Amino acid sequence: MQKQQLSPKANLSLSNIVLGLWRLNDVPAREISSLIHDGLDLGITSIDEADIYGNYQSQKYFGRVLKEEPSLREKLEIVSKTAIVLPGSPSAKKGLGYYVTTENHIVHSVEQTLKDLNTHYLDLLLIHRPSPLMHPEMLDRTFHKLLKSGKVLHFGVSNFTPSQFEMLSERMETPLITNQIEWSVLHVDPIYDGTLDTCIKNQIKPMIWSPLAGGSLFSGQSERAQKVRKAMNEISAELGDPPLDQVALAWLLKHPSGPIPVIGTFQKERVLSAAKAMQLELTDEQWFQILVASQGHPMP
Amino acid sequence: MQKQQLSPKANLSLSNIVLGLWRLNDVPAREISSLIHDGLDLGITSIDEADIYGNYQSQKYFGRVLKEEPSLREKLEIVSKTAIVLPGSPSAKKGLGYYVTTENHIVHSVEQTLKDLNTHYLDLLLIHRPSPLMHPEMLDRTFHKLLKSGKVLHFGVSNFTPSQFEMLSERMETPLITNQIEWSVLHVDPIYDGTLDTCIKNQIKPMIWSPLAGGSLFSGQSERAQKVRKAMNEISAELGDPPLDQVALAWLLKHPSGPIPVIGTFQKERVLSAAKAMQLELTDEQWFQILVASQGHPMP
Amino acid sequence: MQKQQLSPKANLSLSNIVLGLWRLNDVPAREISSLIHDGLDLGITSIDEADIYGNYQSQKYFGRVLKEEPSLREKLEIVSKTAIVLPGSPSAKKGLGYYVTTENHIVHSVEQTLKDLNTHYLDLLLIHRPSPLMHPEMLDRTFHKLLKSGKVLHFGVSNFTPSQFEMLSERMETPLITNQIEWSVLHVDPIYDGTLDTCIKNQIKPMIWSPLAGGSLFSGQSERAQKVRKAMNEISAELGDPPLDQVALAWLLKHPSGPIPVIGTFQKERVLSAAKAMQLELTDEQWFQILVASQGHPMP
Repeated sequence: MQKQQLSPKANLSLSNIVLGLWRLNDVPAREISSLIHDGLDLGITSIDEADIYGNYQSQKYFGRVLKEEPSLREKLEIVSKTAIVLPGSPSAKKGLGYYVTTENHIVHSVEQTLKDLNTHYLDLLLIHRPSPLMHPEMLDRTFHKLLKSGKVLHFGVSNFTPSQFEMLSERMETPLITNQIEWSVLHVDPIYDGTLDTCIKNQIKPMIWSPLAGGSLFSGQSERAQKVRKAMNEISAELGDPPLDQVALAWLLKHPSGPIPVIGTFQKERVLSAAKAMQLELTDEQWFQILVASQGHPMP
Repeated sequence: MQKQQLSPKANLSLSNIVLGLWRLNDVPAREISSLIHDGLDLGITSIDEADIYGNYQSQKYFGRVLKEEPSLREKLEIVSKTAIVLPGSPSAKKGLGYYVTTENHIVHSVEQTLKDLNTHYLDLLLIHRPSPLMHPEMLDRTFHKLLKSGKVLHFGVSNFTPSQFEMLSERMETPLITNQIEWSVLHVDPIYDGTLDTCIKNQIKPMIWSPLAGGSLFSGQSERAQKVRKAMNEISAELGDPPLDQVALAWLLKHPSGPIPVIGTFQKERVLSAAKAMQLELTDEQWFQILVASQGHPMP
Repeated sequence: MQKQQLSPKANLSLSNIVLGLWRLNDVPAREISSLIHDGLDLGITSIDEADIYGNYQSQKYFGRVLKEEPSLREKLEIVSKTAIVLPGSPSAKKGLGYYVTTENHIVHSVEQTLKDLNTHYLDLLLIHRPSPLMHPEMLDRTFHKLLKSGKVLHFGVSNFTPSQFEMLSERMETPLITNQIEWSVLHVDPIYDGTLDTCIKNQIKPMIWSPLAGGSLFSGQSERAQKVRKAMNEISAELGDPPLDQVALAWLLKHPSGPIPVIGTFQKERVLSAAKAMQLELTDEQWFQILVASQGHPMP
């Protein structure tokens, strides 16, 4: 598997597919190490985490592997996220989830993340959700401090609208080198709402969460899911019967924004299958067949 | 009360709270002078007017005070607006309100405003509503003429979408240094529709009309108003029982865009209360509690 | 009739009204030549075509006229379009229309267009619909190649959202000098959705398709069509009884974006009538009367 530079503004490349650990709590502890190694064998060198994953526990599980095998760290790019406060966490006494982007919260979150992960640095830190209270200058100062201390090498955002991204990137000196967004054959909004346009315009590659629509691709019973599955089955037959997850990923990968899917499956054969999607190429006609099936109306 | 510079592009500062005179017709003439003086005593030096307020009469009432006490003028920053033609006015013979942004209309409106106000200049003139017929070059020429003649010192807009603001500011040489918009705990659209993002991106501070939702904050019976009031009451109890108007203003003031509320109340104790909102600081959690109560769904 | 330069970025002017040939199949072959000459006599020098018009046949009909009278070519500006694949065409085997913006498709389409038209060059080539798969660098390379070979002199787009336009124009060296969009008194979205703002901001004049709402202006029975017709009839009476198509075009022409309507009628008297719209000037009040009738609510 090749690597892709996220943006000409920064020297960070991720593997074409990223392993997402948000459901790491479901994995028996003894299997986590081989999960990472299986990924590495396929060329998947990039790991997606967040402080809140697994109710603040995911990074600790992953960190044990890094502690047992410290030489792993340099083979990996580790992405983590900050800004969300989960309901039930010590800072959320009112049963309400919210966002914090103060220097205090971000620095504290990163330090806890580094401690949990048993590492000295993150390759990439993302603002997990756009907070209306984000203050560009303060955020810039915070990021600069984290960069200077060596704790975080690069910065980006997640789930940002075009307007939020351009506001922040215009007013910050720190380059924001990705926007991690939800996108799949069952969720095509980013194609039309400017999100992907804004990535291309600003020369950043989007990371994609739920690139397989959380599995509803295979089992969803909505009319939409059934139509999309029918189109993908037809296309699969035309392409020599690759599994549907490969077709769904190949659909994303054909987009000129250069998307980097984050896959959350921990079954080795599924990861292997996903990796093969890199070799699968849809025709323009096949690509639009899936889009039309998903959006429910023909192209104008 | 401190002052805030509206934009690094211009040397104009307004008081942190602005007194809006759109309902000045309701005030007995003999009380207007003390209203202005009461504001000044609190540090409220900025006055918000428009040619059309009070069916074109508000500025005349205010102007009488300025005539009686000419030394007031230099202690104040006066903001006015132009572009709306009210139904029933001499230029609207069809019973239809509309907008005009021609040089002729704007210059005439400003001259009438100066005459009504008994002053030689406006500190800030706003295009009251975005007209689809605005012609940036012509507007630039008009503004330049008003600036050169000393009749208007600074320019801005009101009720503009991001797209309208960026179109105009991109194609005009005259800096547009504010966008006066509606925003309150009961009207949170500007947070999500790009309006506030665009202010931050363009380094202008928004002026806010109806920052207390026209009073429906205190008496509104909609489910939304009740939920927001409940949240604000809870927060008030946490903060030592400030009145709800202070909580509602403090909610706006926490936003990084640096909003400047225009308050339309003429009761001295309410103005005093509003001024105290500057000292009230909400926690992030309290801020989001109000947002969530207003939008009716938790943060994603 | 005068000509208008589409953008300061390029040396191309179109006549104030453009003749659209998408329904040329309906015209008896022997009448096409006089149709073009009638237009020329009125100063309509610009022709709007597309590879797909008339199920890929329109350009051939027009091309026969250019073959019979080669001296016509230099008197005309010819606009054509590419990127759409019609259902039923050889490249669409699945009964599904879609878009292709690959170098191969565009170059092939342009070469077929030149052959059909019996000309060596297009004055302006538009991407007919925004494809999500547009790759700015590849498109730039393709356009540069067409420009260098002399096959296409200028480039633009059609039916693009603001976000799509700014993405492409930001990342391409080739100037995009128009966006051909749908707009009429019965379809006022471009006024509010940023489309026209983006034209002004980027200093391009929009070309307008269906500027008379495909005739439903005159015969539509919807409440909206009836209200708009009523307003236009009243305004016509105020202006000395010009026909409604002139009022509808004059409404567009008053907009500061400098729109260039593409009219699709082939009746000489209708073309003549349209040309006269250039002389008709609506007042601001009349302009808003039509807008308000169409949008169904007064100006705020």
